[in-house]
Amino acid sequence: MSASIPGYTYESSEKATSPVGAGDLDKLKATVMFTEDDEQALRLAGDVLEDQVEDVLDVWYGFVADHPHLVAYFSTPEGEPIQEYLDRVRPRFSQWILDTCRRPYDQTWLDYQEEIGLRHTPEKKNTTDDVNSVNNISLRYVIAFIYPITATMRDFLGKKGHSAEQVEAMHQAWFKAVTLTVTLWSRPYVRNDLW
Amino acid sequence: MSASIPGYTYESSEKATSPVGAGDLDKLKATVMFTEDDEQALRLAGDVLEDQVEDVLDVWYGFVADHPHLVAYFSTPEGEPIQEYLDRVRPRFSQWILDTCRRPYDQTWLDYQEEIGLRHTPEKKNTTDDVNSVNNISLRYVIAFIYPITATMRDFLGKKGHSAEQVEAMHQAWFKAVTLTVTLWSRPYVRNDLW
Repeated sequence: MSASIPGYTYESSEKATSPVGAGDLDKLKATVMFTEDDEQALRLAGDVLEDQVEDVLDVWYGFVADHPHLVAYFSTPEGEPIQEYLDRVRPRFSQWILDTCRRPYDQTWLDYQEEIGLRHTPEKKNTTDDVNSVNNISLRYVIAFIYPITATMRDFLGKKGHSAEQVEAMHQAWFKAVTLTVTLWSRPYVRNDLW
Repeated sequence: MSASIPGYTYESSEKATSPVGAGDLDKLKATVMFTEDDEQALRLAGDVLEDQVEDVLDVWYGFVADHPHLVAYFSTPEGEPIQEYLDRVRPRFSQWILDTCRRPYDQTWLDYQEEIGLRHTPEKKNTTDDVNSVNNISLRYVIAFIYPITATMRDFLGKKGHSAEQVEAMHQAWFKAVTLTVTLWSRPYVRNDLW
């Protein structure tokens, strides 16, 4: 199914190459306290979330829709929301949830995080969907989104009858994974090798 | 007491001026879902943490000490840790905890976040303490630190006999405040107005 998502190039050669390597990733994983237990918890989270991703996206799109300063990034430079753009991004956003839970964090994963990061910057923002929107998403909101993307996930993780301890383990693993991912997405924004 | 911390210039004119204003801050607060309830929860957290900040710093400094890639930022370019530097930063880090809980998030607060951000970049990193250390802290670790700085705080918030609900409210408010703060600290790292 994922191969049919427009613009989803995870397994294609049509994506960026990340300058971040395995050694860099190990240091970042240590910094967000990410261990093999978190990998296991994310695999379980993938199973828990698989049939709920559309509900999660409803919450996230609702959050964006409630805030004009966020809708602006899916709008024309004149401020008119582009429904086709919102619709095309959504299945990639759904797939991102499952990829974050299920994909091995290897070089292919690192390369695709670089691709996603670039798609938030002027280098690639509107090219994937061929839209006339503003030319970047301000990094401030990419980082700030760590909070809502983490906090709103907890209820969904608790909906399949797992113990409080399991839900907490899945939620902490998700928080670590989101922080790690946003850290990688920030790379193309940064000046002079300060990343 | 805080006036006597070397390099702590919160209430002094010797600090940066932030280009981020009240309108920008309102949008960021909305993005991290920060409300007046969180302000109240942070005030309570300030009372809970006041006599624990040294214990919190012991945990955070222990975490840094355990990871050579983090100790490097408090070391000479040749990799020798600078104890005087670690010692001088520590009381400012303690004060940052209490300021995050207790200060109004006004223009003075925004200006001081800009100052702290700059002190992580080549513009100001070693000037405050007049040390010969590496010339910046890589942004990747500033963002990644959102996880340990958030997760390790929960136990401390629970140590003064508050209800599970109050502890959770304090912890979520802390998570939001840390995400907001790191977002502001990232500003001077970013190229071409992409922040």
